[in-house]
Amino acid sequence: MIHHLSIKSTHREEFISITNEIRKVVELEGVKEGICYIYTPHTTAGITINENADPDVASDILKGLRHLDLESVRFNHCEGNSPAHIKSSLIGCSCFVLIEKGKLKLGTWQGIFFCEFDGPRSREVYVKIIS
Amino acid sequence: MIHHLSIKSTHREEFISITNEIRKVVELEGVKEGICYIYTPHTTAGITINENADPDVASDILKGLRHLDLESVRFNHCEGNSPAHIKSSLIGCSCFVLIEKGKLKLGTWQGIFFCEFDGPRSREVYVKIIS
Amino acid sequence: MIHHLSIKSTHREEFISITNEIRKVVELEGVKEGICYIYTPHTTAGITINENADPDVASDILKGLRHLDLESVRFNHCEGNSPAHIKSSLIGCSCFVLIEKGKLKLGTWQGIFFCEFDGPRSREVYVKIIS
Repeated sequence: MIHHLSIKSTHREEFISITNEIRKVVELEGVKEGICYIYTPHTTAGITINENADPDVASDILKGLRHLDLESVRFNHCEGNSPAHIKSSLIGCSCFVLIEKGKLKLGTWQGIFFCEFDGPRSREVYVKIIS
Repeated sequence: MIHHLSIKSTHREEFISITNEIRKVVELEGVKEGICYIYTPHTTAGITINENADPDVASDILKGLRHLDLESVRFNHCEGNSPAHIKSSLIGCSCFVLIEKGKLKLGTWQGIFFCEFDGPRSREVYVKIIS
Repeated sequence: MIHHLSIKSTHREEFISITNEIRKVVELEGVKEGICYIYTPHTTAGITINENADPDVASDILKGLRHLDLESVRFNHCEGNSPAHIKSSLIGCSCFVLIEKGKLKLGTWQGIFFCEFDGPRSREVYVKIIS
């Protein structure tokens, strides 16, 4: 079964923690040992795992990506969102986390983030648990 | 079973859509629900998922990566292709896509690309379907 | 079963080959056909697959990432290691490798690296084999 999460981004660029939503899916399925796949079907967004404790880390990652100055390049794609497509491929549109004893085996500081690079938009994330 | 796709790149840098080839593998195996793994065994190439509709997006991603100006750095590796190795690690050499009702569960605009960063060359992609 | 590898980095930034350690896990489990997952639970480190033959490639990748000049940005996160968090999300904290006939199906030049971006530290890597 593939679970769908609905996400509403409210800014042009934004990291939205989805760790709790994914924990709920893992609990719901009741799988004790396995792997959790997280995937977003969009081409101007991403999924990443990074620090969940200090929210400055997420905003610093966005700031660091803007420092690459992709916005200054003359791109051909007429929608004007090529930097968002590039960030999507740099960050990637999926991740996986191991499940042990019925829980996501994340590191102490790790959280799972949906990365919006071309918002605000309504977005989706697919979650699949493999036992 | 691991399926092998053969790819011939014709430029130094190039995105080659392999979505249809991977769809054929999924159909051939007849798996209804599962995951499709895509992996390239090369160190100056990558696999990414991004927009398949407007070909300018793929060329803009390559342009954005060149904007990082890695070609201007004095590297030590004597083959002169360190920027290609770096792009390979930034993009990653693999991806996975969920399979639902016998079909790849890609987003509306998503396609799967082999990313050549040091061509032209003969390349390989491995595809494995897990039910 | 999830295997834990312990890693001690000795520099601020460093690629440490873990290919042999992972080969040992694959041999130990005796799985003939499957997938090997490699995951690091840290937010200032990564896992990548790249050239294992010439050690200059690994140091060139670190040099290329430093060329992005993230160290010059004024970040908000007070620990001063935001560039390491960004590199972690760019490289990613996991990879997978197919297993065929009881062996990792890596390309000729590919090796698996733990990427330290904020060392020296004691680090962990999780390895899980799926048959």
